[in-house]
Amino acid sequence: MNSIPTKDSITAAHERIKPYIHRTPVMTSASIDEMAGCHIFFKCENFQKVGAFKSRGAMNAALKLTPEQRANGVATHSSGNHAQALARAAKILGTKSYIVMPRTAPEIKKRGVRGYQGEIFECEPTLEARESTLAEVIRKTGAVEIHPFNNYDVMEGQATCAKELFDEVQDLDFLVAPVGGGGLLSGTALAAQYFSHNTAVIAGEPALANDAYRSLQSGKIEPASPPSSIADGLLTSLGDKTFPLIKENVKKIITVTDEEIVEAMRIIWERLKIVVETSCAVPLAAVLKDKDTFRGKRVGIILSGGNVDLNRVGKLFA
Amino acid sequence: MNSIPTKDSITAAHERIKPYIHRTPVMTSASIDEMAGCHIFFKCENFQKVGAFKSRGAMNAALKLTPEQRANGVATHSSGNHAQALARAAKILGTKSYIVMPRTAPEIKKRGVRGYQGEIFECEPTLEARESTLAEVIRKTGAVEIHPFNNYDVMEGQATCAKELFDEVQDLDFLVAPVGGGGLLSGTALAAQYFSHNTAVIAGEPALANDAYRSLQSGKIEPASPPSSIADGLLTSLGDKTFPLIKENVKKIITVTDEEIVEAMRIIWERLKIVVETSCAVPLAAVLKDKDTFRGKRVGIILSGGNVDLNRVGKLFA
Repeated sequence: MNSIPTKDSITAAHERIKPYIHRTPVMTSASIDEMAGCHIFFKCENFQKVGAFKSRGAMNAALKLTPEQRANGVATHSSGNHAQALARAAKILGTKSYIVMPRTAPEIKKRGVRGYQGEIFECEPTLEARESTLAEVIRKTGAVEIHPFNNYDVMEGQATCAKELFDEVQDLDFLVAPVGGGGLLSGTALAAQYFSHNTAVIAGEPALANDAYRSLQSGKIEPASPPSSIADGLLTSLGDKTFPLIKENVKKIITVTDEEIVEAMRIIWERLKIVVETSCAVPLAAVLKDKDTFRGKRVGIILSGGNVDLNRVGKLFA
Repeated sequence: MNSIPTKDSITAAHERIKPYIHRTPVMTSASIDEMAGCHIFFKCENFQKVGAFKSRGAMNAALKLTPEQRANGVATHSSGNHAQALARAAKILGTKSYIVMPRTAPEIKKRGVRGYQGEIFECEPTLEARESTLAEVIRKTGAVEIHPFNNYDVMEGQATCAKELFDEVQDLDFLVAPVGGGGLLSGTALAAQYFSHNTAVIAGEPALANDAYRSLQSGKIEPASPPSSIADGLLTSLGDKTFPLIKENVKKIITVTDEEIVEAMRIIWERLKIVVETSCAVPLAAVLKDKDTFRGKRVGIILSGGNVDLNRVGKLFA
């Protein structure tokens, strides 16, 4: 257990978590296809439990712990959606959750954690502060850490999202996912390799948080940029478990500006009539930016989440 | 033709328009049910063609015209969604559309009309200006008027929305729709009478545009209030075809403040992760306000549309 996910282990993970997650819908839009010059299939994880794909990985990892392992609770640091997802998984399994969150995390995500009886420990929005606070919490509580992305069981759960899409939509030429720490992206790349070998996986990344792009260039994990992009879910650097899989299995990373992210987000809201968060709009921004790559192709896009702080939305679209 | 819709005529209308409309999904939310104290089934017409139920009535009315009748085009005045719906119907049927719109109508709705090659005539935002401008346009073009609500063929089309909901969700105790001119509401009330006799139809109306509420009190059609409510799709008064049907078949009208509308809209965006317009949030606002009426019941809500001007959204949620 906790080894690189295989075809069988991803299939087993899907069966394991099915009772606790939604099979999310796939949406299309003729007008977006016209803008993009290709055929896009949006996998709508904004409709997932807790409003994001993170439910899959957190639930899978928590379910794979033995009752003894999870007796003292589970713990993590997360800017938001994994936090809610893990708190929910702990509640379902009857154990406690301890969540370290940067004090700058959107209020809607903190409310979500509290709604699942998760205990929040706020810290400064730096990786160092997150890790040291978490270490202290684990020392005090005896909880098990479930890392938001650098964990094969989490990756295995995230991989079920692409698997569902491949079950429903055949012959995708491309599948585009966002990249933050790389849990979704590496899981997606593995799922493509196992279940849809002719689908090339591409990542979208904010130009202001382009550490994954730089890592592929340099061949080693580059540290995260200062947290300046509006895509607040994609600010972390890759992990030692996600980077090698991304290096091997992801065709390329397309970086997009914050302006391009907001424009893509507006298009999704206006045309699909669904609420998605900034990080979630990055793949469409990438497809709209790099039209030559995708022209006339069948393109899957994972819409990763819909937890938007509506109080902040006005500023984005003003 | 163009008489009060019957059970058979609504069924026939549904068959007639099916190739041109979406069968929209029904959504539920455990967290909204908990807030409201009842079981709510949201019929999501924000996902309908042109983003609103108006596609149904406009398409039905346009399809029922003979080719000779529609040869010179179709015309209407509309604050927005009917305008787009009629322009789309005309385009599908290969004829022209002439749309009188108040100059204050949201830009997104004007863009929608132009996208279907509709010709827009702007006027002052008063009923008098709309009617006189439309009369002039019809005199010049020879187009046929298709009124946004005071037209039995339009009403018949709108009735198919409730019919679809009854097909999918049984034993609804209540069905709540918004009321502006009353086309959706009267169609919904007829559909309940024919297809789900034990479902009581209730309307939600902005307190700042409570002419329907006042009309039921006084027993005659009361003029519209000055256009001050944010629910810009619900500012018109009832028509002589819609009022008698509403008087006979609608159980009651619940009025809600603009603040209550924004709060309900926020709940829908945050919990269902879908984009709905202000007018569309009125029924949920009514259910949340009058909890005693709905407690423990099965309640249908028609989410009427999702055409929001995102540039204006920030002010609402700020």
